[in-house]
Amino acid sequence: MNQRLLNLQQALKANDIDQIIISDYYNILYFTGLKIHSGERLLVLLVNQDGLPTFFVNELFSVEGSCDFQLKYFNDTQDSIEVLAAFINGTKIAVDPNWPSGFLLKLMIAKQASYVDGSMMISKLRAIKDIQEQAYMLQSSINNDEVMRRIKGYIKEGVSERYIANILKQLFMEVSGDESFDAIVAFGENGANPHAEPSDRKLRRGDSIIIDMGCHHKDYCSDMTRTFFFQEKTLDDVYDVVLQANLAAIAIIKPGVLLSDIDFAARMVIERAGYGKYFTHRTGHGIGLEVHEPFDVSSSDHRVVESGMCFSIEPGIYLKDKGGVRIEDLVLVTNDGVQVLNKFSKTDYLID
Amino acid sequence: MNQRLLNLQQALKANDIDQIIISDYYNILYFTGLKIHSGERLLVLLVNQDGLPTFFVNELFSVEGSCDFQLKYFNDTQDSIEVLAAFINGTKIAVDPNWPSGFLLKLMIAKQASYVDGSMMISKLRAIKDIQEQAYMLQSSINNDEVMRRIKGYIKEGVSERYIANILKQLFMEVSGDESFDAIVAFGENGANPHAEPSDRKLRRGDSIIIDMGCHHKDYCSDMTRTFFFQEKTLDDVYDVVLQANLAAIAIIKPGVLLSDIDFAARMVIERAGYGKYFTHRTGHGIGLEVHEPFDVSSSDHRVVESGMCFSIEPGIYLKDKGGVRIEDLVLVTNDGVQVLNKFSKTDYLID
Repeated sequence: MNQRLLNLQQALKANDIDQIIISDYYNILYFTGLKIHSGERLLVLLVNQDGLPTFFVNELFSVEGSCDFQLKYFNDTQDSIEVLAAFINGTKIAVDPNWPSGFLLKLMIAKQASYVDGSMMISKLRAIKDIQEQAYMLQSSINNDEVMRRIKGYIKEGVSERYIANILKQLFMEVSGDESFDAIVAFGENGANPHAEPSDRKLRRGDSIIIDMGCHHKDYCSDMTRTFFFQEKTLDDVYDVVLQANLAAIAIIKPGVLLSDIDFAARMVIERAGYGKYFTHRTGHGIGLEVHEPFDVSSSDHRVVESGMCFSIEPGIYLKDKGGVRIEDLVLVTNDGVQVLNKFSKTDYLID
Repeated sequence: MNQRLLNLQQALKANDIDQIIISDYYNILYFTGLKIHSGERLLVLLVNQDGLPTFFVNELFSVEGSCDFQLKYFNDTQDSIEVLAAFINGTKIAVDPNWPSGFLLKLMIAKQASYVDGSMMISKLRAIKDIQEQAYMLQSSINNDEVMRRIKGYIKEGVSERYIANILKQLFMEVSGDESFDAIVAFGENGANPHAEPSDRKLRRGDSIIIDMGCHHKDYCSDMTRTFFFQEKTLDDVYDVVLQANLAAIAIIKPGVLLSDIDFAARMVIERAGYGKYFTHRTGHGIGLEVHEPFDVSSSDHRVVESGMCFSIEPGIYLKDKGGVRIEDLVLVTNDGVQVLNKFSKTDYLID
């Protein structure tokens, strides 16, 4: 059995949980290496404290034998929850937080037990990247840096947000394979919305330009934001404040600090400069197989930072009708500090 | 309030349910017209038996006011389940079947009540397409027919499955916007897997060619399969048997029959021809905003067919190492019979 499953069984014992139901696409990928889109059909890896896990799969999906699990096939004419219920034994069963409630509510009727949220157990394992995952995360960000370098060459007077977003898709195909999310490209006043979608808005002198983008490398995500100004720096001192916040947060990262401390470090810089109420989101989020993973770099996440964690640092200031600035890097927590995975300049912000 | 929400409130009363939690992307779209990808953040429309529903939205997502709901914003520093729990009142609460279990398990702790699976209530409403939905479904299939017509011109000796699949993406962009799912293009022996993914396999004389594809029109999905033979019809009488099964199923569709009867009509044709064990899946599935929706045309779904239902009829025979045949149409149940939404020929199967 692979080390990740062994770690999960260890966690089951430590938490006094008899079994855990793993169902999420990315959790299945993490624990088995398999990519199966099962749609509305049940797909569950049931893990006990000891012995081989059981993988419940509709026979429409061909899964090879593995030394990580035994297979239990079912078909469309069977009640898949009844098939699963026959394997549930124990009093305390953890459930994948992304398992659709419809399945859980049926299982609760089919098999009495105490069902509990398994998210913490899974999240704690996935949050600590092993050495292979760390290498993939780094390469993914190297590729992302390269695409940011190339896209700068396309930013000229009169181009639209949509045009730049489309070119980005092509560049990612060339450099890395595909985007990890639809890039945000926001000019001028559109940058005031942290989740802006690319429009036909054309670039003009003095616009702030937010580009928030990422790609996959071996299934691992990158995610970086840079803000540029076209021909002329505007928005007063907003850029400098956000950059200071980004650097202040990164400066304190090391094993043992709290995620909320990191958020505080960024937030204080922005609040002291008088922009506190314009920094409307958390400072960062975990990342790995998914763009957004536990845990959050936010005022309400008091988790202790550990070596191997990977997350974003992305303070921002958003001024309605004027524009916005966000500067985002991915960081990897090392044994005694932090490695910033993005190397793309944060000071070379003017585009002529 | 819109008619769909009024129908849902009617269903709550009829089922003696106090409130229902709507959370799925497509259910939110269906009941509000809004498209919001909330990622891991809570997004819930809470509907009572009477009065305006409450829409719980993270303030990061800008939602306009509406006469269909009142807005309740929260932010990343708040516990979103606590915000929701304060609005839960009643003893019996229905839950969207796709709501992630992590939210449900937390809500069960925050607020005692009897939580039940709300899937049937939602599915029964969404299964019956109103007149506007019917028009969109028809146009979506008209567009799908057109792309099938165009792709036939690209099928030549030596082309690969992947090449055809890539051309399909372009054609859908030209004709309709985008695919409703990644098309299946399977040559020869690859067609023996009902869920084959396009490979570099090249087309040869005598190959069966399965193309299973669909697109969106105004968010509504089409889905059609045709099987061709390259230069020479092979697989003995398999094509004719599958076509007879497709026609036999369609022939009996009208309000009042059971979905399982329709499955039986197709399955009997195939079983009598001696291929019963090679027809390994259900005969069809509901379709609308999603490619796969309740209900199933299967031996285990005994629901009564009603006017306005839309589903696929897609019998198939799969012969390991040889190939496969599947013939799929979308149908719409009318007041006294059935309308087949796909007009693309099922008898013109030879490509030279």
